Amino acid sequence: MKKPRQSDPTRIVLYGLHPVWETIKAGRRRVDRVYVAQGSAAGKRISAELHATGIEVVRASSEEIAELAGSPYHQGIAAAVGPFRYAELEHVLDSDRTAKEPVVLLDEVQDPGNLGSILRTGECLGVRAVVLTRDRSVAVTPAVEKASAGASAHVPVVRVTNMVRTLEELKKAGYWIYSAEARASRSCFLEDLSGPVAFVVGSEGKGVRRLVREHCDIGISIPMKGRIDSLNVAQAVTVLLAEALRQRGAS
Amino acid sequence: MKKPRQSDPTRIVLYGLHPVWETIKAGRRRVDRVYVAQGSAAGKRISAELHATGIEVVRASSEEIAELAGSPYHQGIAAAVGPFRYAELEHVLDSDRTAKEPVVLLDEVQDPGNLGSILRTGECLGVRAVVLTRDRSVAVTPAVEKASAGASAHVPVVRVTNMVRTLEELKKAGYWIYSAEARASRSCFLEDLSGPVAFVVGSEGKGVRRLVREHCDIGISIPMKGRIDSLNVAQAVTVLLAEALRQRGAS
Repeated sequence: MKKPRQSDPTRIVLYGLHPVWETIKAGRRRVDRVYVAQGSAAGKRISAELHATGIEVVRASSEEIAELAGSPYHQGIAAAVGPFRYAELEHVLDSDRTAKEPVVLLDEVQDPGNLGSILRTGECLGVRAVVLTRDRSVAVTPAVEKASAGASAHVPVVRVTNMVRTLEELKKAGYWIYSAEARASRSCFLEDLSGPVAFVVGSEGKGVRRLVREHCDIGISIPMKGRIDSLNVAQAVTVLLAEALRQRGAS
Repeated sequence: MKKPRQSDPTRIVLYGLHPVWETIKAGRRRVDRVYVAQGSAAGKRISAELHATGIEVVRASSEEIAELAGSPYHQGIAAAVGPFRYAELEHVLDSDRTAKEPVVLLDEVQDPGNLGSILRTGECLGVRAVVLTRDRSVAVTPAVEKASAGASAHVPVVRVTNMVRTLEELKKAGYWIYSAEARASRSCFLEDLSGPVAFVVGSEGKGVRRLVREHCDIGISIPMKGRIDSLNVAQAVTVLLAEALRQRGAS
């Protein structure tokens, strides 16, 4: 069995049914080979479709796939693929100027589970793109793609060096930019989120950095009832995207 | 160092700053001893408060705490505590009849991360209680309490043997019961959720069991935009609780 390694930068090993299958369906990324464990339910579920794609399928043991993937959570399926393709901000801004869905900007969010969850929720509730800082942020790794349940194959993810410059470009393109802050006096439920809006959220604990916050148009908060500190960042993004979706008249 | 074991049913080891500290603050559960790692930031943060409680504090190494906790994610703090105290349904229904927040019922949800996340979000956005099935559901384990960021110390959790009977009791108490279903034609954004409501959600993949669904008043769905299957169950609960909170005029 040929063994690509996670450390080879031009050869990534995705794992899990959804990340592998959504990547193949999206058709925007090189897929060299799919590994399927003997008797795996996931493999059975897509074997006919896999055959139709013409992609090389390699039978392997569950242990071999775990070693390739560097994770036991592979559901009996993995794929050697090309690098994740980040989107360009101009591309995102140029296309589809009419029906703008919210842009979500993550200011130094480092948890892979949170990024995966935000991509998944964004794909379900509607997100134009997710923007990450290049430094001190998690990148789109196979673990993130697994946590996204395959949404990473569909949601444009942009990496930027300078978040402040990105905010200025979004403003020029007509976006109204909200900074999500636990202590902001304006409630997300009382803002008009039906136009082109962007939400900036920060890392847990630290929140949005001051300089970034100062370049947002305004702060909004999610009303809180309880006795503990704050919503998880992925849950906060869910509330904001759901409210934007509701105001756009989704039903 | 005295070592309680996770396998002793009368002695549970909680771990992580928030689970330990929220449990102490809530004051509803026996706390025998707190273990703090030398030099841990979490330990420093609460050492003065800990001292004031009079609870025995034991210094330990990070490795010893990991062994006690059975997890490396302890942030340098753990506590030997009594069993988690589940709430009784009658108690939940009897108290606070006026300002009823939603009840969330989890039909055979098995992922500890999802339960923890639902408790955390429920505490933040407002939940009257979370109801679990006794069989084929995850219980409130230390891992769940860690994932809940301490919310498990505050949110009433009820375990029931017969979910259908629980639904009938909720109906008698005046609750309107929604079953969350991907294919239901009614949108959660167009329902009146401002009164006493309960949301039943099922496990990922299987959804709400047919018999349980048939005892709900009606099905509702969350409008979906994307190309992947469905929201994670914890994210779906977040959308429903946020919408109920919005309709109650939170701002």
